[in-house]
Amino acid sequence: MTEKAVLAANAAFYRAFRDGDAEAMDLVWARSAAVACIHPGWPPLFGRDAVMKSWAGALSSSPAIAVESPRVVLTGGTAAVLCLERIGRSVLAATNLFVNEAGHWRIFHHHASAIARGAPRAKPPARPRVVH
Amino acid sequence: MTEKAVLAANAAFYRAFRDGDAEAMDLVWARSAAVACIHPGWPPLFGRDAVMKSWAGALSSSPAIAVESPRVVLTGGTAAVLCLERIGRSVLAATNLFVNEAGHWRIFHHHASAIARGAPRAKPPARPRVVH
Repeated sequence: MTEKAVLAANAAFYRAFRDGDAEAMDLVWARSAAVACIHPGWPPLFGRDAVMKSWAGALSSSPAIAVESPRVVLTGGTAAVLCLERIGRSVLAATNLFVNEAGHWRIFHHHASAIARGAPRAKPPARPRVVH
Repeated sequence: MTEKAVLAANAAFYRAFRDGDAEAMDLVWARSAAVACIHPGWPPLFGRDAVMKSWAGALSSSPAIAVESPRVVLTGGTAAVLCLERIGRSVLAATNLFVNEAGHWRIFHHHASAIARGAPRAKPPARPRVVH
Protein backbone atom coordinates (compact mmCIF):
# COMPACT_ATOMS: atom_id res chain seq x y z
CA MET A 1 0.00 0.00 0.00
CA THR A 2 2.69 2.48 1.08
CA GLU A 3 5.04 1.17 -1.58
CA LYS A 4 2.43 1.69 -4.27
CA ALA A 5 1.78 5.27 -3.12
CA VAL A 6 5.51 6.02 -3.06
CA LEU A 7 5.98 4.62 -6.56
CA ALA A 8 3.08 6.78 -7.73
CA ALA A 9 4.79 9.84 -6.25
CA ASN A 10 8.03 8.87 -7.97
CA ALA A 11 6.17 8.49 -11.28
CA ALA A 12 4.52 11.90 -10.80
CA PHE A 13 7.95 13.47 -10.27
CA TYR A 14 9.25 12.05 -13.55
CA ARG A 15 6.02 12.90 -15.38
CA ALA A 16 6.41 16.55 -14.34
CA PHE A 17 10.04 16.41 -15.47
CA ARG A 18 9.27 14.81 -18.84
CA ASP A 19 6.34 17.14 -19.49
CA GLY A 20 8.32 20.23 -18.51
CA ASP A 21 5.43 21.08 -16.18
CA ALA A 22 6.68 23.57 -13.60
CA GLU A 23 3.39 23.62 -11.68
CA ALA A 24 3.29 19.83 -11.39
CA MET A 25 6.97 19.82 -10.40
CA ASP A 26 6.25 22.31 -7.63
CA LEU A 27 3.40 20.13 -6.37
CA VAL A 28 5.48 16.96 -6.01
CA TRP A 29 8.14 18.60 -3.81
CA ALA A 30 7.81 18.70 -0.02
CA ARG A 31 6.32 21.76 1.67
CA SER A 32 7.40 21.26 5.29
CA ALA A 33 10.46 19.02 5.08
CA ALA A 34 13.88 20.45 4.25
CA VAL A 35 14.54 20.08 0.53
CA ALA A 36 17.77 19.34 -1.34
CA CYS A 37 18.89 18.19 -4.77
CA ILE A 38 22.02 16.90 -6.51
CA HIS A 39 21.66 17.23 -10.27
CA PRO A 40 24.02 15.17 -12.45
CA GLY A 41 27.54 16.55 -12.16
CA TRP A 42 26.43 19.20 -9.69
CA PRO A 43 27.21 19.98 -6.07
CA PRO A 44 24.25 19.79 -3.66
CA LEU A 45 21.57 22.47 -3.69
CA PHE A 46 19.78 23.23 -0.42
CA GLY A 47 16.40 24.80 0.24
CA ARG A 48 13.14 24.80 -1.65
CA ASP A 49 13.82 28.09 -3.43
CA ALA A 50 17.21 27.03 -4.81
CA VAL A 51 15.91 23.62 -5.80
CA MET A 52 12.77 24.86 -7.54
CA LYS A 53 14.80 27.51 -9.34
CA SER A 54 17.12 24.80 -10.63
CA TRP A 55 14.13 22.82 -11.90
CA ALA A 56 12.77 25.84 -13.70
CA GLY A 57 15.92 25.73 -15.80
CA ALA A 58 15.94 21.97 -16.22
CA LEU A 59 12.29 21.90 -17.28
CA SER A 60 12.90 24.38 -20.07
CA SER A 61 14.81 21.64 -21.86
CA SER A 62 12.84 18.64 -20.68
CA PRO A 63 14.33 15.41 -21.91
CA ALA A 64 12.44 12.32 -23.07
CA ILE A 65 13.18 10.63 -19.77
CA ALA A 66 12.08 7.06 -19.01
CA VAL A 67 12.19 5.48 -15.57
CA GLU A 68 13.27 1.88 -15.15
CA SER A 69 13.50 -0.60 -12.27
CA PRO A 70 12.21 1.61 -9.44
CA ARG A 71 12.69 0.00 -6.02
CA VAL A 72 11.33 1.35 -2.76
CA VAL A 73 13.35 1.24 0.46
CA LEU A 74 11.10 2.11 3.42
CA THR A 75 12.91 3.21 6.57
CA GLY A 76 11.26 4.91 9.49
CA GLY A 77 8.89 7.57 8.21
CA THR A 78 10.73 8.14 4.94
CA ALA A 79 10.90 6.27 1.67
CA ALA A 80 13.76 6.08 -0.80
CA VAL A 81 13.16 5.13 -4.40
CA LEU A 82 16.22 3.95 -6.29
CA CYS A 83 15.77 3.74 -10.03
CA LEU A 84 17.39 4.14 -13.40
CA GLU A 85 16.71 7.07 -15.71
CA ARG A 86 17.09 6.49 -19.42
CA ILE A 87 17.59 9.57 -21.60
CA GLY A 88 18.36 8.64 -25.15
CA ARG A 89 21.38 6.36 -24.97
CA SER A 90 22.42 7.60 -21.54
CA VAL A 91 21.50 5.86 -18.33
CA LEU A 92 21.57 7.51 -14.92
CA ALA A 93 21.08 6.13 -11.42
CA ALA A 94 18.81 8.08 -9.09
CA THR A 95 18.09 8.25 -5.39
CA ASN A 96 14.76 9.94 -4.65
CA LEU A 97 13.67 10.52 -1.05
CA PHE A 98 10.03 10.94 -0.07
CA VAL A 99 8.25 11.98 3.09
CA ASN A 100 4.55 11.78 3.87
CA GLU A 101 3.09 15.23 4.39
CA ALA A 102 -0.56 15.20 5.44
CA GLY A 103 -1.26 12.01 3.52
CA HIS A 104 0.77 12.93 0.41
CA TRP A 105 4.14 11.41 -0.38
CA ARG A 106 6.33 14.28 -1.50
CA ILE A 107 9.93 14.25 -2.70
CA PHE A 108 12.45 16.08 -0.53
CA HIS A 109 15.73 15.01 -2.13
CA HIS A 110 16.77 13.93 -5.63
CA HIS A 111 20.26 12.75 -6.54
CA ALA A 112 20.96 11.58 -10.09
CA SER A 113 24.26 10.59 -11.65
CA ALA A 114 25.43 9.08 -14.90
CA ILE A 115 26.19 5.40 -15.04
CA ALA A 116 29.44 4.83 -16.88
CA ARG A 117 29.13 2.87 -20.09
CA GLY A 118 30.19 -0.67 -19.46
CA ALA A 119 30.03 -0.15 -15.68
CA PRO A 120 30.92 -3.45 -14.10
CA ARG A 121 28.02 -5.05 -12.29
CA ALA A 122 29.86 -7.71 -10.40
CA LYS A 123 33.41 -6.72 -9.64
CA PRO A 124 34.15 -4.34 -6.79
CA PRO A 125 34.28 -0.67 -7.71
CA ALA A 126 37.26 1.52 -7.07
CA ARG A 127 36.61 5.14 -6.23
CA PRO A 128 37.97 7.07 -9.19
CA ARG A 129 41.12 9.07 -8.59
CA VAL A 130 40.55 11.04 -11.72
CA VAL A 131 36.91 11.44 -12.55
CA HIS A 132 37.10 12.83 -16.05
CA MET B 1 22.25 16.55 19.57
CA THR B 2 20.86 14.27 16.86
CA GLU B 3 22.69 16.23 14.19
CA LYS B 4 25.97 15.83 16.04
CA ALA B 5 25.47 12.07 16.35
CA VAL B 6 24.59 11.77 12.67
CA LEU B 7 27.68 13.75 11.65
CA ALA B 8 29.77 11.45 13.84
CA ALA B 9 28.29 8.42 12.06
CA ASN B 10 29.05 10.05 8.71
CA ALA B 11 32.63 10.70 9.81
CA ALA B 12 32.98 7.08 10.97
CA PHE B 13 31.84 5.88 7.56
CA TYR B 14 34.51 7.94 5.79
CA ARG B 15 37.15 7.00 8.35
CA ALA B 16 36.51 3.30 7.65
CA PHE B 17 36.70 4.05 3.92
CA ARG B 18 39.93 6.05 4.16
CA ASP B 19 41.56 3.50 6.47
CA GLY B 20 40.50 0.56 4.30
CA ASP B 21 39.08 -0.98 7.48
CA ALA B 22 36.59 -3.67 6.47
CA GLU B 23 35.55 -4.41 10.06
CA ALA B 24 34.82 -0.76 10.80
CA MET B 25 32.97 -0.45 7.49
CA ASP B 26 30.78 -3.40 8.42
CA LEU B 27 30.01 -1.80 11.79
CA VAL B 28 28.77 1.49 10.36
CA TRP B 29 26.19 -0.13 8.03
CA ALA B 30 22.65 -0.86 9.19
CA ARG B 31 21.74 -4.28 10.52
CA SER B 32 17.93 -4.23 10.35
CA ALA B 33 17.12 -1.63 7.71
CA ALA B 34 17.28 -2.48 4.02
CA VAL B 35 20.64 -1.47 2.60
CA ALA B 36 21.56 -0.06 -0.81
CA CYS B 37 24.46 1.74 -2.47
CA ILE B 38 25.21 3.64 -5.68
CA HIS B 39 28.97 3.85 -6.23
CA PRO B 40 30.23 6.51 -8.66
CA GLY B 41 29.26 5.53 -12.20
CA TRP B 42 27.48 2.41 -11.00
CA PRO B 43 23.92 1.19 -11.06
CA PRO B 44 22.29 0.64 -7.63
CA LEU B 45 23.29 -2.31 -5.47
CA PHE B 46 20.66 -3.78 -3.13
CA GLY B 47 21.05 -5.83 0.02
CA ARG B 48 23.66 -5.93 2.73
CA ASP B 49 25.61 -8.82 1.18
CA ALA B 50 25.98 -7.15 -2.22
CA VAL B 51 26.85 -3.79 -0.67
CA MET B 52 29.43 -5.14 1.77
CA LYS B 53 30.99 -7.21 -0.99
CA SER B 54 31.34 -4.06 -3.10
CA TRP B 55 33.04 -2.30 -0.20
CA ALA B 56 35.48 -5.15 0.24
CA GLY B 57 36.70 -4.34 -3.24
CA ALA B 58 36.65 -0.57 -2.78
CA LEU B 59 38.55 -0.78 0.52
CA SER B 60 41.38 -2.71 -1.07
CA SER B 61 42.33 0.48 -2.89
CA SER B 62 41.31 3.01 -0.26
CA PRO B 63 41.73 6.55 -1.47
CA ALA B 64 42.93 9.52 0.56
CA ILE B 65 39.38 10.77 0.85
CA ALA B 66 38.48 14.00 2.62
CA VAL B 67 34.94 15.05 3.53
CA GLU B 68 33.82 18.64 3.14
CA SER B 69 30.72 20.67 3.94
CA PRO B 70 28.56 17.91 5.47
CA ARG B 71 24.96 19.01 6.03
CA VAL B 72 22.31 17.04 7.85
CA VAL B 73 18.70 16.87 6.65
CA LEU B 74 16.50 15.30 9.33
CA THR B 75 13.16 13.95 8.12
CA GLY B 76 10.95 11.60 10.05
CA GLY B 77 13.09 8.93 11.68
CA THR B 78 15.88 9.11 9.13
CA ALA B 79 18.75 11.45 8.50
CA ALA B 80 20.41 12.39 5.24
CA VAL B 81 23.92 13.79 5.15
CA LEU B 82 24.83 15.60 1.96
CA CYS B 83 28.52 16.33 1.59
CA LEU B 84 31.43 16.66 -0.78
CA GLU B 85 34.16 14.05 -1.10
CA ARG B 86 37.58 15.23 -2.21
CA ILE B 87 39.92 12.63 -3.65
CA GLY B 88 43.05 14.19 -5.05
CA ARG B 89 41.86 16.76 -7.57
CA SER B 90 38.46 15.14 -8.00
CA VAL B 91 35.38 16.24 -6.10
CA LEU B 92 32.28 14.10 -5.67
CA ALA B 93 28.86 14.85 -4.20
CA ALA B 94 27.41 12.30 -1.80
CA THR B 95 24.03 11.48 -0.30
CA ASN B 96 24.35 9.29 2.81
CA LEU B 97 21.22 8.04 4.58
CA PHE B 98 21.21 7.05 8.23
CA VAL B 99 18.73 5.31 10.48
CA ASN B 100 18.83 4.97 14.25
CA GLU B 101 19.13 1.30 15.25
CA ALA B 102 19.00 0.73 18.98
CA GLY B 103 20.63 4.06 19.72
CA HIS B 104 23.23 3.90 16.94
CA TRP B 105 22.99 5.92 13.75
CA ARG B 106 23.89 3.55 10.95
CA ILE B 107 24.16 4.19 7.23
CA PHE B 108 21.68 2.36 5.00
CA HIS B 109 22.31 4.06 1.66
CA HIS B 110 25.29 5.78 0.04
CA HIS B 111 25.17 7.51 -3.35
CA ALA B 112 28.28 9.27 -4.64
CA SER B 113 28.86 10.90 -8.01
CA ALA B 114 31.52 13.03 -9.62
CA ILE B 115 31.02 16.75 -9.82
CA ALA B 116 31.93 17.99 -13.27
CA ARG B 117 34.86 20.37 -13.38
CA GLY B 118 33.55 23.87 -13.70
CA ALA B 119 30.03 22.75 -12.76
CA PRO B 120 27.86 25.83 -12.81
CA ARG B 121 26.62 26.77 -9.37
CA ALA B 122 24.00 29.29 -10.31
CA LYS B 123 22.56 28.62 -13.72
CA PRO B 124 19.97 25.91 -14.19
CA PRO B 125 21.27 22.48 -15.05
CA ALA B 126 20.23 20.55 -18.11
CA ARG B 127 19.99 16.80 -17.84
CA PRO B 128 22.77 15.52 -20.11
CA ARG B 129 21.68 13.85 -23.30
CA VAL B 130 25.08 12.31 -23.77
CA VAL B 131 26.85 11.61 -20.52
CA HIS B 132 30.35 10.90 -21.70
